[in-house]
Amino acid sequence: NAKEPLLEQYRERLRTELDRVVDFWLKYSHDKEHGGYFNCLGKDGKVYDELKYVWLQGRQVWMYSRLYRTMERFHRPEILEAAKSGAAFLQKFARVQASGGPGKCAFCLTRDGRTVKVQRTIFSECFYVMAMDELSRITQDKEMQVKLLVILFCPCSPQADAESMMDRLIFWVQTDSSDLGRPQLPGDPPINSMAVPMMLLCLVDQLTEGRTDVAEKYKDLSGWCVERILQHIQRDGKAILENVTLNGKELPGCQGRLQNPGHALEAGWFLLQYALKKGDVHLQKTAVDKFMEIPFHTGWDKQHGGLFYFLDVDGHCPTQLEWNMKLWWPHCEALIAYLMAYGHSREPVLLDRFKQIYNYTFTHFSDEEHGEWFGYLSRQGEVVLDFKGGPFKGFFHVPRCLYMCEKLLDSLLERQDS
Amino acid sequence: NAKEPLLEQYRERLRTELDRVVDFWLKYSHDKEHGGYFNCLGKDGKVYDELKYVWLQGRQVWMYSRLYRTMERFHRPEILEAAKSGAAFLQKFARVQASGGPGKCAFCLTRDGRTVKVQRTIFSECFYVMAMDELSRITQDKEMQVKLLVILFCPCSPQADAESMMDRLIFWVQTDSSDLGRPQLPGDPPINSMAVPMMLLCLVDQLTEGRTDVAEKYKDLSGWCVERILQHIQRDGKAILENVTLNGKELPGCQGRLQNPGHALEAGWFLLQYALKKGDVHLQKTAVDKFMEIPFHTGWDKQHGGLFYFLDVDGHCPTQLEWNMKLWWPHCEALIAYLMAYGHSREPVLLDRFKQIYNYTFTHFSDEEHGEWFGYLSRQGEVVLDFKGGPFKGFFHVPRCLYMCEKLLDSLLERQDS
Repeated sequence: NAKEPLLEQYRERLRTELDRVVDFWLKYSHDKEHGGYFNCLGKDGKVYDELKYVWLQGRQVWMYSRLYRTMERFHRPEILEAAKSGAAFLQKFARVQASGGPGKCAFCLTRDGRTVKVQRTIFSECFYVMAMDELSRITQDKEMQVKLLVILFCPCSPQADAESMMDRLIFWVQTDSSDLGRPQLPGDPPINSMAVPMMLLCLVDQLTEGRTDVAEKYKDLSGWCVERILQHIQRDGKAILENVTLNGKELPGCQGRLQNPGHALEAGWFLLQYALKKGDVHLQKTAVDKFMEIPFHTGWDKQHGGLFYFLDVDGHCPTQLEWNMKLWWPHCEALIAYLMAYGHSREPVLLDRFKQIYNYTFTHFSDEEHGEWFGYLSRQGEVVLDFKGGPFKGFFHVPRCLYMCEKLLDSLLERQDS
Repeated sequence: NAKEPLLEQYRERLRTELDRVVDFWLKYSHDKEHGGYFNCLGKDGKVYDELKYVWLQGRQVWMYSRLYRTMERFHRPEILEAAKSGAAFLQKFARVQASGGPGKCAFCLTRDGRTVKVQRTIFSECFYVMAMDELSRITQDKEMQVKLLVILFCPCSPQADAESMMDRLIFWVQTDSSDLGRPQLPGDPPINSMAVPMMLLCLVDQLTEGRTDVAEKYKDLSGWCVERILQHIQRDGKAILENVTLNGKELPGCQGRLQNPGHALEAGWFLLQYALKKGDVHLQKTAVDKFMEIPFHTGWDKQHGGLFYFLDVDGHCPTQLEWNMKLWWPHCEALIAYLMAYGHSREPVLLDRFKQIYNYTFTHFSDEEHGEWFGYLSRQGEVVLDFKGGPFKGFFHVPRCLYMCEKLLDSLLERQDS
């Protein structure tokens, strides 16, 4: 196969990059005094703010645990210790005592774990679930699991902790969200925002891997999530809109016209992964044609390259000041999406897309000098915010992308060998 | 005086520009069906979203009323009608019935007045006070004032409505903010954010103009505001920081290091105006030296011109994605600040600053083709968001700047004549 040397070359680069990224966070982000991780790291790794963001704490626990469990070169004690430290910090401090009902987690904490901010959404809790479930998979031994964490506030196992939070999440999303503290306002009826079913589908995938009893428990939920995600296909199948009504109609105004290409591409690989597991050929095609090709074509900046952050389906200017910036994470999601799609179908055009995104990504985001990636570029591709970690950028999208792509290439090259 | 032709030239341009800006909003923003104003206007004035933002509704009522009352060429029935329509809409729909205690106003409404979003801050209420107070000044006749609005929900006069809301604001800021609905969190103690004392000082100035009884009522408050504003002078008098502790110390992290040059410059002219009224020479000097010269020097982009939106006092990269963008409003505030400072002291260097900001502003923000100003430029000065009205840009900073500068130049040129 003529493509093999190129794929080998990609794998080599991705592997090296993943090693560097892991080293960066191991070296700079650990808070040896209070546990957990510093999130705000400058371009050289220096901590410029001590706040700890719960989304990012949870994601980092997940990433360390996943690397420890599934990649031999990361099956190292320091990575296990890093994961446990973050999980202990989360179990001890993430839950808000005073507000939001049982399970409500903070969005942001001080270095020593005091609550700074609580969002009236479900995402802190989602990343809490991801963290605890993946940590629980480091050992299958229930007693070991309990001993994994010796934390006063949570004597249960990480798996039980994850599942009980998951049940709370499902209650908020499907039954009653009043615990979240967001008042129902007459001009703001509930909507179907892409993030919610995407996130829940991701969690179902996480929780059910290799656990048939759990899979049975959540089997209706994944169908519900897929249905909700597919409602975002609008305009006679020609657009993916970020927000729609609960019965899948277009919403008025800017909110209704909003497109978030990176988010659609991420939904694309979530759907494709689900459809491949299910053997659902029709859904596989929908994932690629609708959730990859459409956002790629509308989202790619023909003039300067890279994916726009936000667009308006009717060509109005989005009201988000950062709409035309090039962020790292949509590019991460696009790389996973197209490599997964190519790995499945071997359609050369899908590999071409991967190459195009790969070339932009590695020439613009990766920092040769200090390691890790810059996160925020101008439309023209210059680094505008030069930190490596910030309130929304942690040890997650970059390593998950590198990890997933390496795994996908392993499998592609194995099949080519055979 | 050699400067006179230049000042005349400025005045002419500002006057023409103000006329064009007023025409733009009169023509495109009025909702003849539901009352109030459309806020989201594209570059050509076309409505691209029907949501109504309470800050912007209140500010537009204030601006129309002020122009009607104090500039002869705007003393026209259509401008009075425009102000009344917005005030009626506000009185009818701005207050949130369900939450936040008496007086709590929404942040965003549907076209027909249903609440979309409520912020847990005081600013919607502040602009409500500005609107009602300025409207009340259109006539001094109390009976006429009552008749000015025939709205079921508020049978009181606009002045009484403004003062009762002001009392509520003072209670929230100085006594108990729990009505606002923001929970007290252990990691987030109350801080002194520049916006709060600035806004209250602006309101005291508004409410007390020509009303000695009201001035007596609020005389302690203005001193309190000035003291709180002065606490933002930090780093041995070399920096203005946006957020400090309640006793005027620096806060840790990004929040504590944040600089917002446009906001400091706005505080500068609020302070100078107050100090001129009081005849406080020391405060006049502080206003210029600290709240104008410091933010101008730190905020001006030596490479591309214009004022940055946010900066970090230690030179870290701010975490706000828009930190290096050039926004219209800091330039508006800087123009007022330096023209006021020059008008008072006649220091040539202050006129040079005005010229520098003026040149950048008029070559970059003003739209020759469709009228009004663009609001959001890249660091390099290109228009990035091309709308004329959006969730935070209404009929306020541009016309207030043009109006204030025209008035200041009138007074400057009058004194030169005599």
